[in-house]
Amino acid sequence: MDNYVRFFDTTLRDGEQSPGATLTSAEKIEVARQLARLGVDIIEAGFPIASPDDLAAVQRISAQVGRADELRAWADDSVRPPVICGLARASEEDIDAAWEAIQSADHPRIHTFLATSEIHMRHKLRMDPEEVVDRVQQMVAYAKGYCEDVEFSPEDAGRSDPEFLYVVLAEAIKCGATTLNIPDTVGYTTPDEFGALIAGIIANTAGIEDIIVSVHCHDDLGMATANTLAGIRAGARQAEVTINGIGERAGNTSLEEVAMALHTRRPVFNLEHGIDTTQITRSSRMVSKYTGIVVQPNKAVVGANAFAHEAGIHQDGMLKHEETYEIMRPETVGLSQSTLVLGKHSGRHALRVRLQELGFDPKDKELKDVFARFKRVAEKKKVVADADLVALITDEIYQPAEVFRLKDAQVVCGTLGMPTATVRMVGPDGEESEQAAIGTGPVDACYSAIDAIVQLPNELQEYNVNAVTEGIDALGEVTVRIQVDPEQVAAPTRLSPQREQLQYRTFGGHGASTDVFVASARAYVNALNKALAALGVPAEKPAATAGSGSEKA
Amino acid sequence: MDNYVRFFDTTLRDGEQSPGATLTSAEKIEVARQLARLGVDIIEAGFPIASPDDLAAVQRISAQVGRADELRAWADDSVRPPVICGLARASEEDIDAAWEAIQSADHPRIHTFLATSEIHMRHKLRMDPEEVVDRVQQMVAYAKGYCEDVEFSPEDAGRSDPEFLYVVLAEAIKCGATTLNIPDTVGYTTPDEFGALIAGIIANTAGIEDIIVSVHCHDDLGMATANTLAGIRAGARQAEVTINGIGERAGNTSLEEVAMALHTRRPVFNLEHGIDTTQITRSSRMVSKYTGIVVQPNKAVVGANAFAHEAGIHQDGMLKHEETYEIMRPETVGLSQSTLVLGKHSGRHALRVRLQELGFDPKDKELKDVFARFKRVAEKKKVVADADLVALITDEIYQPAEVFRLKDAQVVCGTLGMPTATVRMVGPDGEESEQAAIGTGPVDACYSAIDAIVQLPNELQEYNVNAVTEGIDALGEVTVRIQVDPEQVAAPTRLSPQREQLQYRTFGGHGASTDVFVASARAYVNALNKALAALGVPAEKPAATAGSGSEKA
Repeated sequence: MDNYVRFFDTTLRDGEQSPGATLTSAEKIEVARQLARLGVDIIEAGFPIASPDDLAAVQRISAQVGRADELRAWADDSVRPPVICGLARASEEDIDAAWEAIQSADHPRIHTFLATSEIHMRHKLRMDPEEVVDRVQQMVAYAKGYCEDVEFSPEDAGRSDPEFLYVVLAEAIKCGATTLNIPDTVGYTTPDEFGALIAGIIANTAGIEDIIVSVHCHDDLGMATANTLAGIRAGARQAEVTINGIGERAGNTSLEEVAMALHTRRPVFNLEHGIDTTQITRSSRMVSKYTGIVVQPNKAVVGANAFAHEAGIHQDGMLKHEETYEIMRPETVGLSQSTLVLGKHSGRHALRVRLQELGFDPKDKELKDVFARFKRVAEKKKVVADADLVALITDEIYQPAEVFRLKDAQVVCGTLGMPTATVRMVGPDGEESEQAAIGTGPVDACYSAIDAIVQLPNELQEYNVNAVTEGIDALGEVTVRIQVDPEQVAAPTRLSPQREQLQYRTFGGHGASTDVFVASARAYVNALNKALAALGVPAEKPAATAGSGSEKA
Repeated sequence: MDNYVRFFDTTLRDGEQSPGATLTSAEKIEVARQLARLGVDIIEAGFPIASPDDLAAVQRISAQVGRADELRAWADDSVRPPVICGLARASEEDIDAAWEAIQSADHPRIHTFLATSEIHMRHKLRMDPEEVVDRVQQMVAYAKGYCEDVEFSPEDAGRSDPEFLYVVLAEAIKCGATTLNIPDTVGYTTPDEFGALIAGIIANTAGIEDIIVSVHCHDDLGMATANTLAGIRAGARQAEVTINGIGERAGNTSLEEVAMALHTRRPVFNLEHGIDTTQITRSSRMVSKYTGIVVQPNKAVVGANAFAHEAGIHQDGMLKHEETYEIMRPETVGLSQSTLVLGKHSGRHALRVRLQELGFDPKDKELKDVFARFKRVAEKKKVVADADLVALITDEIYQPAEVFRLKDAQVVCGTLGMPTATVRMVGPDGEESEQAAIGTGPVDACYSAIDAIVQLPNELQEYNVNAVTEGIDALGEVTVRIQVDPEQVAAPTRLSPQREQLQYRTFGGHGASTDVFVASARAYVNALNKALAALGVPAEKPAATAGSGSEKA
């Protein structure tokens, strides 16, 4: 067994299944690029059978991130094309779709799965163990017909009979599986149990000597990281993880926790890996921003309070010795302490250089728009921090094609009552319309006025505002999540891989402005445009004009 | 060794040390009461030497939550008075202050600590090992002079020489310690290591047979829960934890994760505990609200997505069998699915009954104020959910004494620029004053106008808005955190127990309204009043009038 741990990132598959985490295709590409910079070995890019959108997104990632020739266009020589993996249930249609999505990658992988626990076989699959073994043999072989690199997962392995697992896994190996992934699907095990399960599989499965054993844990009891590491110590050499530990329910194992445990306790684990830890903070922030899933301040490695030097300690009285309370250095995870970089006298070139340092590569049109917004922010704020720049560029670049465009919005509100908002929007026909509405608050009033124009019945499921930086003049970032009303609209759905059910999709929107009301309006229009695109409403104008005109505040 | 695991909750001590988590005395009492309902065995109520405020808060908790006679006034017979513990460094002044704070409790405990790792002894304490042993002997004996129940912690035990630990701990036992707590202060260990450390201590420490061994873990590498459980399996019978895992850096072990692991995997652990799991959700929400520290959606047990039934699955196509993806039932942690309870025709009695069911016991004046606000919200919203009621009652009851009171506020803003706010406030002298200000956004404009009246230089460190429930007409809850500018004001400080340094205190504020702008104004005034109280500025009016008049929106 070698001593290299492969990082298999499933942020774009298991992570994106979290409620409200739906990403646009452009956001998925950007996350995949960042995962490549971070050094992950395998990107599970999606579940191609779920919907045509999902398939198309995996195809784009295969072509743009999974190929050395394309990758050189945006990455330096240290970045290598990761394996691009598509998930498929144990059926021919699923495997066909997965192969269609990944075949253009330099290193494609098909990942197929079937449940092996008593409870899943009986209640979900309604198959007996012999039927399960047959299906695994057939479908692993079918996948192998497309692709040398085949991964098989016995779903709910944590609650499966180990003896049955050994049989199923040996058959999967015979039929061509090259990676065997052992999921604790319901986040049920303790590290002792999970380590013993992996050790048992390695000791008792025929033909496993040349196979990579993988671990995939969930955090329902808060032990995903410890279970993953226990599996690795028992001989697993692939860890399935997500950025920030996002995923269904309590989420998946956090990439950053496993990577920093291997790094910080290197003498204990004595294992190699390909993660560039200095890319962790940037990856975390990008995923949090695009998914709208916040990272709590006390989250290990990537939480706002995770490092002692930020914990409100009087900076004059520095620690007598850094390591008394700090086992990791903030620089190691790419947490820069510089906050003051650009001001109102900075030029467009300086802005481009700084954005490139931050990992963005704006097109000329985008740079022009961001620069105009940067100047307006710089006039209002004393300092423009990196976080502000990231908020602006994110807002500018990764917008959906605009079906409706917000032109102007204003509001009057306060304790005296009757919050009243007025909006002016440009529709898909290029026509301007205006509406005013009264609401329970300024945001409600504004959203009612927008609804009167856009006419897409929906429910607001989440509304969240964060200040991007400290200080009273901070840029405010608003994230919203809406679900289109399925009783009034043919709401877009997609298949959930495990439950074999249709899920209604929800749509996140994001807006940034020094005026929290303007940011709220932008976020809502953003979410509506994503929903309209998913409903197939064509945008009159290309995405490149996104955001223009809507930032005066 | 018995099979009962004691839960020692340090939310009010280690948790409250998190940046920005500063709680008012009234909030601390309320959290302590909730911890008693939750069934924790020991409440570490604070670090009394840190400041006179901290000492007074621990005294109040000892008197009101730590005594059976007082406890019957607000709790039913199933709730028993927990042990009330005060933290003290290994010095006479600290132990004196701790005893002063806890002596009125039925079951007081002094918890003293001294570092035993090479790095801490050399760089922080500047003591050699012999001096450390001497100090432990003296101070445990000194604490024992006050109190039968004495806990000793060798700080940074996770990085200490085990042989030295055995010696120090044996001396602590000889001098009267009844609980020995083993902290992994920097969150450094793996479950294997930490379990072995505990097993080694139990096997090699003279006199440990009748002693409770305790574990105290931090989550820097994401393994606090697994480490705590490994310690328990090795023989520890006390777990030091916090609600939501709050605490310095990446935080402490989460109470809810350890409790639910013991509960869900009972056949594995086979241990008893006193936690009423149905109080977990309420405890989590209360701590999150009062501290302003958000819980991420993918947090185990208490995150918004933690339960499968809430994961956006189409409800018509229910799971074929609940346990296929659910190892815990939401009811077990007290997560009620009822959202629609009261409407605009509900009377004051119905409101009181529902608030009591939710764990609140409003005084007549508070009920009157909450009822008035409830009616205004009920007129605007289709349904008033439990979460709305909790937001309103929290806003009403747990305000600091008001030095300044917000009377009215209004704002005009939007993409057309020049956000302008006007506020009217009543000062400590009873005089009304008005100010208008222009800002970068509506919140900035409003805060500038408030600053022009209150005149307390500060920096806004955090600003956060959440919708309390789903729906566009949701009540918005704003939390802010400010730090008074230490260069312009004698900023209030307190002692950090481990670092032996003064920390500048930050002040959190909370506001709820259907108008997010009004909620923002209320939250800021709330934080300013906390800071003014800490600076010793007297309030003209008693706290009972808090909030009145400020909710018209």
